[in-house]
Amino acid sequence: MSDSDNRSVVDLRRDLHAYPEAGWKEFRTTALVADELAERDFTLHLGDEAVAPDERLGVPPEDELLAAVERARREGAPEEYLERMDGITGLVASKTYGDGTGPVVGVRVDMDALERTEAQDDDHRPVDEGFVSTHPNEMHACGHDGHTAIGVGVARELDRGGGFDGTLKLFFQPAEEGGRGGLPMSETAHLNDVEHLVAIHLGLGIETGTVVAAFEHPLSNAKLDVTFHGEPSHAGGAPEEGRNALQAAAAAIQNLYGLPRHSDGVTRINVGQVRSPNPQNIIPEHVEMRVEVRGDSADLNDSMLERARRVVSAAADMHDVDVQTGLYGKTTTFAADTDIAEAVANAARDVDGVDEIVACDDMAGSEDASYLIRRVQENGGQATYVGIGASNPYGHHTARFDIEEESLPIGVDVVSETVRRL
Amino acid sequence: MSDSDNRSVVDLRRDLHAYPEAGWKEFRTTALVADELAERDFTLHLGDEAVAPDERLGVPPEDELLAAVERARREGAPEEYLERMDGITGLVASKTYGDGTGPVVGVRVDMDALERTEAQDDDHRPVDEGFVSTHPNEMHACGHDGHTAIGVGVARELDRGGGFDGTLKLFFQPAEEGGRGGLPMSETAHLNDVEHLVAIHLGLGIETGTVVAAFEHPLSNAKLDVTFHGEPSHAGGAPEEGRNALQAAAAAIQNLYGLPRHSDGVTRINVGQVRSPNPQNIIPEHVEMRVEVRGDSADLNDSMLERARRVVSAAADMHDVDVQTGLYGKTTTFAADTDIAEAVANAARDVDGVDEIVACDDMAGSEDASYLIRRVQENGGQATYVGIGASNPYGHHTARFDIEEESLPIGVDVVSETVRRL
Amino acid sequence: MSDSDNRSVVDLRRDLHAYPEAGWKEFRTTALVADELAERDFTLHLGDEAVAPDERLGVPPEDELLAAVERARREGAPEEYLERMDGITGLVASKTYGDGTGPVVGVRVDMDALERTEAQDDDHRPVDEGFVSTHPNEMHACGHDGHTAIGVGVARELDRGGGFDGTLKLFFQPAEEGGRGGLPMSETAHLNDVEHLVAIHLGLGIETGTVVAAFEHPLSNAKLDVTFHGEPSHAGGAPEEGRNALQAAAAAIQNLYGLPRHSDGVTRINVGQVRSPNPQNIIPEHVEMRVEVRGDSADLNDSMLERARRVVSAAADMHDVDVQTGLYGKTTTFAADTDIAEAVANAARDVDGVDEIVACDDMAGSEDASYLIRRVQENGGQATYVGIGASNPYGHHTARFDIEEESLPIGVDVVSETVRRL
Amino acid sequence: MSDSDNRSVVDLRRDLHAYPEAGWKEFRTTALVADELAERDFTLHLGDEAVAPDERLGVPPEDELLAAVERARREGAPEEYLERMDGITGLVASKTYGDGTGPVVGVRVDMDALERTEAQDDDHRPVDEGFVSTHPNEMHACGHDGHTAIGVGVARELDRGGGFDGTLKLFFQPAEEGGRGGLPMSETAHLNDVEHLVAIHLGLGIETGTVVAAFEHPLSNAKLDVTFHGEPSHAGGAPEEGRNALQAAAAAIQNLYGLPRHSDGVTRINVGQVRSPNPQNIIPEHVEMRVEVRGDSADLNDSMLERARRVVSAAADMHDVDVQTGLYGKTTTFAADTDIAEAVANAARDVDGVDEIVACDDMAGSEDASYLIRRVQENGGQATYVGIGASNPYGHHTARFDIEEESLPIGVDVVSETVRRL
Repeated sequence: MSDSDNRSVVDLRRDLHAYPEAGWKEFRTTALVADELAERDFTLHLGDEAVAPDERLGVPPEDELLAAVERARREGAPEEYLERMDGITGLVASKTYGDGTGPVVGVRVDMDALERTEAQDDDHRPVDEGFVSTHPNEMHACGHDGHTAIGVGVARELDRGGGFDGTLKLFFQPAEEGGRGGLPMSETAHLNDVEHLVAIHLGLGIETGTVVAAFEHPLSNAKLDVTFHGEPSHAGGAPEEGRNALQAAAAAIQNLYGLPRHSDGVTRINVGQVRSPNPQNIIPEHVEMRVEVRGDSADLNDSMLERARRVVSAAADMHDVDVQTGLYGKTTTFAADTDIAEAVANAARDVDGVDEIVACDDMAGSEDASYLIRRVQENGGQATYVGIGASNPYGHHTARFDIEEESLPIGVDVVSETVRRL
Repeated sequence: MSDSDNRSVVDLRRDLHAYPEAGWKEFRTTALVADELAERDFTLHLGDEAVAPDERLGVPPEDELLAAVERARREGAPEEYLERMDGITGLVASKTYGDGTGPVVGVRVDMDALERTEAQDDDHRPVDEGFVSTHPNEMHACGHDGHTAIGVGVARELDRGGGFDGTLKLFFQPAEEGGRGGLPMSETAHLNDVEHLVAIHLGLGIETGTVVAAFEHPLSNAKLDVTFHGEPSHAGGAPEEGRNALQAAAAAIQNLYGLPRHSDGVTRINVGQVRSPNPQNIIPEHVEMRVEVRGDSADLNDSMLERARRVVSAAADMHDVDVQTGLYGKTTTFAADTDIAEAVANAARDVDGVDEIVACDDMAGSEDASYLIRRVQENGGQATYVGIGASNPYGHHTARFDIEEESLPIGVDVVSETVRRL
Repeated sequence: MSDSDNRSVVDLRRDLHAYPEAGWKEFRTTALVADELAERDFTLHLGDEAVAPDERLGVPPEDELLAAVERARREGAPEEYLERMDGITGLVASKTYGDGTGPVVGVRVDMDALERTEAQDDDHRPVDEGFVSTHPNEMHACGHDGHTAIGVGVARELDRGGGFDGTLKLFFQPAEEGGRGGLPMSETAHLNDVEHLVAIHLGLGIETGTVVAAFEHPLSNAKLDVTFHGEPSHAGGAPEEGRNALQAAAAAIQNLYGLPRHSDGVTRINVGQVRSPNPQNIIPEHVEMRVEVRGDSADLNDSMLERARRVVSAAADMHDVDVQTGLYGKTTTFAADTDIAEAVANAARDVDGVDEIVACDDMAGSEDASYLIRRVQENGGQATYVGIGASNPYGHHTARFDIEEESLPIGVDVVSETVRRL
Repeated sequence: MSDSDNRSVVDLRRDLHAYPEAGWKEFRTTALVADELAERDFTLHLGDEAVAPDERLGVPPEDELLAAVERARREGAPEEYLERMDGITGLVASKTYGDGTGPVVGVRVDMDALERTEAQDDDHRPVDEGFVSTHPNEMHACGHDGHTAIGVGVARELDRGGGFDGTLKLFFQPAEEGGRGGLPMSETAHLNDVEHLVAIHLGLGIETGTVVAAFEHPLSNAKLDVTFHGEPSHAGGAPEEGRNALQAAAAAIQNLYGLPRHSDGVTRINVGQVRSPNPQNIIPEHVEMRVEVRGDSADLNDSMLERARRVVSAAADMHDVDVQTGLYGKTTTFAADTDIAEAVANAARDVDGVDEIVACDDMAGSEDASYLIRRVQENGGQATYVGIGASNPYGHHTARFDIEEESLPIGVDVVSETVRRL
């Protein structure tokens, strides 16, 4: 990778970092990527061609999406691609190199930011060097700005160099946070012919210079949005006329945490973002909350989800209130394939800046690249999820998260070299 | 009342006290009363002629009833009446006096004992004078032995004296404790022609010599038996395979106590007799419990009962366990009628030993004479519930409860004199 | 009351309605009232002379207060009074009429708005006639704009007419909603010499033309703010490292609603404004909620408050989280005095527009005028709480609440005439 | 093993089966074993010489122990040993063979029965062949009758044959069920010089003829007895005067099951034997329950136990009731030592009837031999827990549990042959 490209991958990452877009709002990000890849003669699939619209999870309200489009327009997103997206973010871009006799190789990166406000401290590098988020309550606190930049960098690198005669498919996935975009992207036909799939992630607790050829076995995860709706009444004057949504929610919370442990493996449950806005003199009529379950197999996760639904539904019935539930996000688990992981390890050995290679390790969190990986594996292909070390003293999802930018060219080179060797 | 009758009412009470029979098991008591009233030319209605069999609440298992019949037989109950009862206790006895031109007057007394063991202390008078209960876990700790004796005493008194030309109907009600026998006795035709009904109770916190002409406004009450039944599994080996009846019960208990207060009046809820017998290494599969609700109107009570059922049912559903509920007992509320209460007060004024007369007062507990009273009132008749003072230092339902026996002839005379004046 | 004054009381109410100020933020309201009463030669007590600063309950954060002062300045509040208030709202204004031989009569009105956004419907009269709230999330939805206008109207009326030779003390109370301003206003010396106190309220379910001379027996009320604070951790990676504030809150909610009913009288409990903001993949570390208790005596209310504190504290301990509680507001109960209530009824009889007079009635809600009333009564004075009918099809505290303005001159006249007769 | 010994081990097991004794009541069992081993010149340590008295867990009330001694006396236990036990069961018996130059080898078996009633079905072999339990609510439903018989059988075998020149220590442990006797037996000096320890168990899901040389990694386990004690009051008349032990228990149960999963490994929690005996018209004053926690390390188990104590204590505080907790039983975990496990496997290969040998396997349940094993390992010795296959169609702890008696001589031979080879 040349020095000039090196610089520009960093520049692209900093541009994206300054204009972070949360899940399903990545209009500017998608459009900028699409613009460059179109110039590089990639075939583009945007919007409802990139993700199955009906399979999208956790989509924000329409007015928020419209505002996000408008913001992207103001902030320089080319109009052509905003129109082609038609309200749905995500991009699949493909290009055949050389004589096209080589394999179809997929590379998957994610693009979305988190809903939190970036730190404003002077010693936070994005502040000091002038690329801190300009969007309140949105921040690239998980490194997806770097992932997107690496995805573009791989296109640049393969365009420049030789050594690959197959088809490259780049998957720029929206809405990874919460596990909302992986499933709908996996439910398109684009993965049907992918023989090898490489997904990547920066950081994850490993230092710059280390590459994990195969992170695997994330916990499966599902997120359930729950709304209890009862009937208000005056708590002093007629408490019996209310139908108490908060009592339903409290009963649900108590019993959700009480779901039994499972002898087949690890399970998890948690509840967040609870809101019961009624003043204290009114019997609470409306409660929103978000439930998350996990399991170290898809079956365990599904079993937890089913039990959680039962608890929530019965809690509503107990207090005679209505309840609505909707899946906010979902991920599954996977094991990496040995051959492709070895190819990554071999490629990494030849990359400048790589000083340690880990063959495989279990990953801590959950990840919706899992749906793309399993789809490729179901079709007989091979897939792996690669960790690109990126040192930073603050954890993922914190207000001071940042990535060491030396990791970006390493990421580009590891992936490009892997593609060439497959 | 003559001295000899005085003695014999006391003797009868002591006999009943020594052989107490809990609700629906009053075979000996019923048979002894029936035997004397038959000799006195009363017309007898026994068993399913005295109570509507299908309306009985909280009936013990068949084998317990059979054992109680057998015990009554051993303890001297005349065979003829055991046969006529055919497993169902309770007696309605009627007799027309004089020319029969007077009104039909009902007198209601209850016969059942409590399920507790009587104190064995030497200074407990039933021990000292040799009439303590001979039945473990059964005891006349609420004075119904005295009520029954007074009922018989009234028959003796009216047989002896003049002054009454109407029809006397004596209602010897079974299973008052828990509110199990009043409803089925009210659901017979015997009350249809009753123009005046007097129910009585000894004690209730008032001293010997005091008469309350009208106790009224008891809380309505309902008792719900609940059984949760799930699936056991080893708590270490496979906790997820159990269906946890105890979690269901705990959720139910927490939320039953949380039922809202009512702006229309007083309500109550309580849970008792909870039993979850599984060892601690097995996911609990079976829980029994008893719920009690109250309200100061029948509607409030019904509303609480309905809500309690909802909570219990949803708690079972929440943990995927089965639930069975059954009504164990039920009472309603009432107001006494002024005219008959005045008649009682006037009668009491002429009775030896009465030194204070209270026109009316609210009663604390619940009482299923309420069903008989309301039935008479619905038919256009008048009814009251009379308190006959009986001093005792220990409270109702305690192991050392006893009644001052001077109260017995007072009770006979107050009721008899009232009947004559109606 | 002359037509021109009539118009101007309405105008004043509409001005206040357009610029509603929530509790402890009534800077513009207080300043406008102070400005007029100063011109009318009233002696003014503002800020920490009107309320005992340390007794204030539920005071918003300092930055909100400063913003409210700034807003009042922008919206025309005379600077002099903003300075004299020095951050604390509330006003006591007194003036002696004639020879000063008459009694000291207090009139108490409240000034604060609610925190809710007013309806924007075209057929909502404040919209149609151009005086709808210009403050998002603040609205006069309980009629206090009218109360304040009536207070000023009484000053105008007594200035104009004769018939009163005593001292008038006008209490413009802040922060009635939530019961936050009554207690600190009662803890000043201004009530010490008040012989008669009249507090008023518009609406309360009674129609224009009706006057209730004595509303009494409100439920005592206390509002407790609760914050649970634990320790976050990743719900998938290390759930055991969290200290779960939401489990503490859910346990508290379940058991607060389960506090027992009381045989001495009516009690109430409710929980509102629950907020647990953590995302669903983080063990919840922070929960805020507001608890409200009531009782039909101050003792019952205190007993409920004490039990609620116990539940909340134990729930925190159960899940090893910290908890902070603070009293947000408090009211007590009272009975009106007969003589002053009769004076009001007699006065009302001579007021145009009054067509029905109710001697006394129980009130449904809670009210912190109770503290001023009891303080006067403790000092040997007499007090009453007067309902001035004001028809409106929408309930108090709803987004479409409005008051029929014909009620305003009625209110002025009833109070003025009462003052003259005392 | 000769045919005659074979028969007599079976006879001994059947004798013990007919007279089962629950934990800490094994007076007859201990005495019979002591009697035979005394004749065989073993040195005996009984009662407080066999277990550390103050470390005993879950000891029944004194009157139950006295009744158990009396029963043992009636059922043929030699008086001498009853006296030497002085109320405490358990036996350590040692004997040195040959020149005593060999190692000190311990063999640990347990003796107690379960508290459940044995099946009375005709096709249940103990019924059919006349050795069914004669003690209601006590039954050898876990095979400890067989373990004890094997322990005696090993003494007989080593007495008969040669091949062992060391010291044999037989540990006849009381109260294994619930984990009550292992800890106090490990807290004596008898294990200090034990170089090799073999513990055994029959059944455990493996068929007759199979031997597992090393069962290991049981879950650590602790059992906590909890008693909540409040104040009763009449649920209708004065609910507020009660202090509700059942609400405390329900809150505890809900929140115990809600204790968080742990990222370090497997944990468990369960509640059993809940009893709240109050009638439903009395605020419940007394609740007993038993809590069980587990963890796949001693630390995880201790952490669960500490958290469970916190929940229970706070639940009591929440409802102002008293709580008492006591440890009912406790076990730890262990790994077997390779050398001794190999010795067992080698020995088993030469035993008639053994057709399959499993080197090691994880065990499902919990086991307090763990304390003896760890004590030996801490002293530098080696230990293993051996599974002796015993087919039976009904599970451990069920009313129809039985053991295939062909397993008994196999057990004797495997252990004896192992001792000889160590």
